[in-house]
Amino acid sequence: MSVAQFSQETSGKGEWVRQANRFTGRVSAASTSAPGEGPDDQGRWPVEPNRYRLIWSKACPWAHRAVIVRRLLGLDDVISLGTVDPIRDERGWRFTLDPDGRDPVLGVEFLADVYRATDPDYTGRVTVPALIDTLTGQVVTNDYPQLTLDFSTEWTAFHGDGAPDLYPEAQRPEMDELMSEIYTDVNNGVYKCGFAVSQEAYESAYRGLFARLDALSDRLARRRFLMGDAITEADVRLFTTLVRFDAVYHNHFKCNRNKLTEMPVLWTYARRLFQTPGFGETVDFDQIKRHYYGTHAVINPSGIVPAGPDLRGWVMPLGDR
Amino acid sequence: MSVAQFSQETSGKGEWVRQANRFTGRVSAASTSAPGEGPDDQGRWPVEPNRYRLIWSKACPWAHRAVIVRRLLGLDDVISLGTVDPIRDERGWRFTLDPDGRDPVLGVEFLADVYRATDPDYTGRVTVPALIDTLTGQVVTNDYPQLTLDFSTEWTAFHGDGAPDLYPEAQRPEMDELMSEIYTDVNNGVYKCGFAVSQEAYESAYRGLFARLDALSDRLARRRFLMGDAITEADVRLFTTLVRFDAVYHNHFKCNRNKLTEMPVLWTYARRLFQTPGFGETVDFDQIKRHYYGTHAVINPSGIVPAGPDLRGWVMPLGDR
Repeated sequence: MSVAQFSQETSGKGEWVRQANRFTGRVSAASTSAPGEGPDDQGRWPVEPNRYRLIWSKACPWAHRAVIVRRLLGLDDVISLGTVDPIRDERGWRFTLDPDGRDPVLGVEFLADVYRATDPDYTGRVTVPALIDTLTGQVVTNDYPQLTLDFSTEWTAFHGDGAPDLYPEAQRPEMDELMSEIYTDVNNGVYKCGFAVSQEAYESAYRGLFARLDALSDRLARRRFLMGDAITEADVRLFTTLVRFDAVYHNHFKCNRNKLTEMPVLWTYARRLFQTPGFGETVDFDQIKRHYYGTHAVINPSGIVPAGPDLRGWVMPLGDR
Repeated sequence: MSVAQFSQETSGKGEWVRQANRFTGRVSAASTSAPGEGPDDQGRWPVEPNRYRLIWSKACPWAHRAVIVRRLLGLDDVISLGTVDPIRDERGWRFTLDPDGRDPVLGVEFLADVYRATDPDYTGRVTVPALIDTLTGQVVTNDYPQLTLDFSTEWTAFHGDGAPDLYPEAQRPEMDELMSEIYTDVNNGVYKCGFAVSQEAYESAYRGLFARLDALSDRLARRRFLMGDAITEADVRLFTTLVRFDAVYHNHFKCNRNKLTEMPVLWTYARRLFQTPGFGETVDFDQIKRHYYGTHAVINPSGIVPAGPDLRGWVMPLGDR
């Protein structure tokens, strides 16, 4: 995020306001398009294996959701994955981790190239996750909340054997409300703490964040996962913030009432998820830390990456397993 | 500290190098000067009650030492105390906490006024603690390591009943070495972490800091205080850094392998001191936090002060008392 873009996303009260997602295409089982065709007359792209490519940064919690859901559902062999460098330059997310600095499927050096190919007038931030149509090289969607729900509900024909139901129909009203609270106070709440430019805006976000974490801790004291005995999308969404909490948000975003390790219920819960296949192996603390501390010059001008914290606790055995 | 001053104190390798103390006068029992006179021909000021004034900031760990030692020795009624605002402006430490914004004894608005009255050519940082001769309005010393030792050894005629021996003669060689290690790796080590401008310099300071804290933890696992069963100057010096550790150094200076609360021996030791008369009542976490986060624009441009951490543990009962 550049300083100029940062300012665009700051309100008059010093609050940070996240930009809306620009590309909101959906891949849908209801599409009437044939394989290889574009969206149908209702804007629905056809579900099709080996056609779409998910672009993520290992640093980004919003993109991380999609990679966990893709893996939990067994969509790895159906939707390919491209990974950008955790450090952006002034041209944005880069494919500098790939040979010759180009995504091997899309052939581009920058994710911005794909955004511009889709909309030459696009001026917003180029964000991950982005689902790309490899046939046309266009962005289908960067609408991360819908993207993962569609993996659950539209891609069922390609789910792996025994894939979990991450968005159970009977629980959706309760889940939607819960996920909305988690988004406002936790997922986005940490950013509101970190990017506030007034003490009042920061403290308001801080209070909302920890009040919500306390409420979630109370909820999880009585159940294994947020919606009961089974992992759902709500857990994935909470996890990608919790796993970054002590590594970056506690220091870099001033979310420092206490560390996650000091909240026993949430810490046990987060480690339980980390140690579940599909979660921990998608976490790269080094890239997470280098991204946040190396990218936000407005809050860490030196770019120095803290050597701590000690993160070995994530892989320690849980008492209750 | 201004950005320009910050640069003056940065080496070519990105290490932060603290400036030397400029004023090194000593108040000595060996002075041959009469009361009211200046230093004798060997530069020694006379020990004299109600003549000298100690200026501190509650935020500053170096100044904090002097206030604790003064209190432990019962010198409160003999050496008066002036307190500057934790927030400096471009003119430096200010007496804005006093009525009309002037120190009631010295009559000045800024500590820099006293420095300039003493040395019109002084261009270094104006630092606390400073011991001021109220008769002439001049700085006797800002040499903080010597200042507290002189409180112990030169002011004995005015020590309170039952004052501790904070610098026992038989232990001085061992203490001097220990305090030197604590200075290099801990007291100044946290600043070297925070003000490093290269990753290498930061990581070197970080390693030195936590290696030393681990060694001190081992030492304190076997004894109540650093030198045995009695509090000494070495404990005072370690305390003023430890008490600021979670409140500021852990986040602001990236000293984040773990919090003090996560180092059980040191945490118990630090609380034991905090709960000893002369220590805890001199700690002002609010001023400490506002100073560090509000002063160092080079590392916290927003000036936002974190609402955390939860510091209630400092006053919780100790199991072993």
